[in-house]
Amino acid sequence: MTFSYISHLDCPSCGNRYDSNQVQQLCSCGSPLLVRYKLDELKENVSRESINGRNADLWRYHELLPVNDPNNVVSLGEGMTPLLELPRLGEEYGISHLYMKDESLVPSGSFKARGAAVGISKAKELGVRAFAMPTNGNAGAAWALYAARAGIEATIVMPIDAPSITRSEVALSGAELYLVNGLISDAGKIVAQKVKDDGVYDASTLKEPYRIEGKKTMGIEIAEQLGWEMPDVILYPTGGGVGLIGIHKALLELKEIGWVTGKLPRLVAVQAENCAPIVKAWEEKKERSEFWDNSTTIAFGINVPKALGDFLVLRAIYETEGAAVAVSDEELLTEQRNAARTEGVFICPEGAAAFAAVRRLKQTGWIKVNEKVVVLNTGAGIKYPETAQVEVPVLEIGDRLSTSK
Amino acid sequence: MTFSYISHLDCPSCGNRYDSNQVQQLCSCGSPLLVRYKLDELKENVSRESINGRNADLWRYHELLPVNDPNNVVSLGEGMTPLLELPRLGEEYGISHLYMKDESLVPSGSFKARGAAVGISKAKELGVRAFAMPTNGNAGAAWALYAARAGIEATIVMPIDAPSITRSEVALSGAELYLVNGLISDAGKIVAQKVKDDGVYDASTLKEPYRIEGKKTMGIEIAEQLGWEMPDVILYPTGGGVGLIGIHKALLELKEIGWVTGKLPRLVAVQAENCAPIVKAWEEKKERSEFWDNSTTIAFGINVPKALGDFLVLRAIYETEGAAVAVSDEELLTEQRNAARTEGVFICPEGAAAFAAVRRLKQTGWIKVNEKVVVLNTGAGIKYPETAQVEVPVLEIGDRLSTSK
Repeated sequence: MTFSYISHLDCPSCGNRYDSNQVQQLCSCGSPLLVRYKLDELKENVSRESINGRNADLWRYHELLPVNDPNNVVSLGEGMTPLLELPRLGEEYGISHLYMKDESLVPSGSFKARGAAVGISKAKELGVRAFAMPTNGNAGAAWALYAARAGIEATIVMPIDAPSITRSEVALSGAELYLVNGLISDAGKIVAQKVKDDGVYDASTLKEPYRIEGKKTMGIEIAEQLGWEMPDVILYPTGGGVGLIGIHKALLELKEIGWVTGKLPRLVAVQAENCAPIVKAWEEKKERSEFWDNSTTIAFGINVPKALGDFLVLRAIYETEGAAVAVSDEELLTEQRNAARTEGVFICPEGAAAFAAVRRLKQTGWIKVNEKVVVLNTGAGIKYPETAQVEVPVLEIGDRLSTSK
Repeated sequence: MTFSYISHLDCPSCGNRYDSNQVQQLCSCGSPLLVRYKLDELKENVSRESINGRNADLWRYHELLPVNDPNNVVSLGEGMTPLLELPRLGEEYGISHLYMKDESLVPSGSFKARGAAVGISKAKELGVRAFAMPTNGNAGAAWALYAARAGIEATIVMPIDAPSITRSEVALSGAELYLVNGLISDAGKIVAQKVKDDGVYDASTLKEPYRIEGKKTMGIEIAEQLGWEMPDVILYPTGGGVGLIGIHKALLELKEIGWVTGKLPRLVAVQAENCAPIVKAWEEKKERSEFWDNSTTIAFGINVPKALGDFLVLRAIYETEGAAVAVSDEELLTEQRNAARTEGVFICPEGAAAFAAVRRLKQTGWIKVNEKVVVLNTGAGIKYPETAQVEVPVLEIGDRLSTSK
């Protein structure tokens, strides 16, 4: 039985082909590489029904993942997160079928675990012993934890303003951790130098080709959870944009093997007003984004001034007739509170940004009342205590509530 | 099709029977009530194979849960958490088959979500409009979130020292929240007065009979995930002890309907050295515990000086030839770090206490090398930043790692 139908890597920019049995980073042209599969063979041999009885994690799709030997799978039980219907929030927005894909229910409390699980597993298969990466916090936390599970050495550099709990996750995992007085782009430069100096594997976003494969499972799961039907719209908070690229790739692959049919959902990249390079490029109908100066947002995960895969994000939007939307920190904080009060979900600020975008796109008529809309909540609200500060009355022992009010 | 085989409630202390179609709290004798099912009928009509294709959440066991009408189910996708094998940690302890049931992967990041999901669903079915409860943080967070999802009003009282993120979860959900300068027992007294004054539903631990049913699904899942075989030992960090009572109840029910056979696992209650009422009672071979004065531990969830269900916890231990173990804060903090470094799991301090107990029980020979051992990690480490403080070097933009070391 074939565990993976991986064939090779290729470059979405210049078309160059690379061997997936060797460590690869970027294409010689500077573009990220994509994993390709023997989809014809897969279509012949694997039906979507055959995965029904499998474990409820992302490895249920192992034929569409890049790891050849099941013994190299490094898992903490990630994947098959709930796709929750949110009827009351939907009613408030004026949408009949509103869903949230809840990525808070994965190891480390953020969707980054998917990329880390597949990325680390493939790194293990390729014999990688040490890597370095820059991060806005959550990716570093996930990669450090999976690295510990795999016995691989990690060096992580994150901005000093990254969510502080992610420091603990990285340091406790035994990774080498550094903070930098700057942005993720500054952390990236330090990592690039380290890679050059020490020859370690560069696990920066899209500089290794396999995290996309982990993230794409969000798209496969959404399709499976909707009974192998695609929704009309998927909204995704976009920093590096790997999730959006991955979901797009997944749905194209599913179409090719016949597990889904019909029109792809319109993909929406959601950014913060003060860090919106993709939105600006989309509004100007450009193929690539420009570096966004002095970027800032409370939704720290999407504070990415320039993404290496920007052209792939924009391509996904254009090809699906999607959109790109920027929302303010105020809007997303309001949406975070509203979601908790209305549906009992404590979402992360990045996820809240995507909800704010739904509200706006419904108001402008871009989303229609009967469309099936899926919002990615990319992480747990509990990782961001600073976005949810509250004032609470303090009682003394023996106080009485009815009178103390 | 029968959704639930619930029959009635009865008192494990005096044997009194109660109608499960009415709101019930404690037995008139002061004991918690337990839910009983028509297990003969269930055995006749439902096979364990019939649940194979169901959703990966705790409602897959709906026949063994108390909610009659599926429309009353209030869910955020809880349950079917990973049962992870931990080979390297097992090797360190000298145990061949060490597993962790990872309850960090549930809504709100703690196993309290199970009790809240079933407790709130049944409250909704019974027409409850408002409730009050004391909490050490996580239970209040879970109940407040599920209450928001159900549209039920919640009043929550927690110690001022409870994990601060749980304040945000409760307050954002729209619940009425109070802190008290004291312990959960002091919060309990304030809630009791509120219940008396305002006639709201008392959702205090074991004063409502249904959270046990939610928690018991941990036991059912462990059995199912091990191929309907029971492990030899299950260790559980014990505050109120509902999970241990629930797991014991679940396994007895599974035996009665024939889904598992053989000897029940030895159940181990793990407490903190400075809050160990159950351990003391067990060492003295008593049926009930005494109030533990000046209790304190960094594993806040198990800082419960006297549990209402103490006699049920002790009964579960005695009947399964289990044990009760107290560990120090220092031991559990060491174990928390060790688990992250060795297996990439960032566990909560309560879960870490249970791992410390495994280490000790293996050293004393109480656990044997070839036994199948399951440790409950009851929540996500990310909810307890104060237990995982780290010192991290700070770089300036353009710094070089290799030289800055």
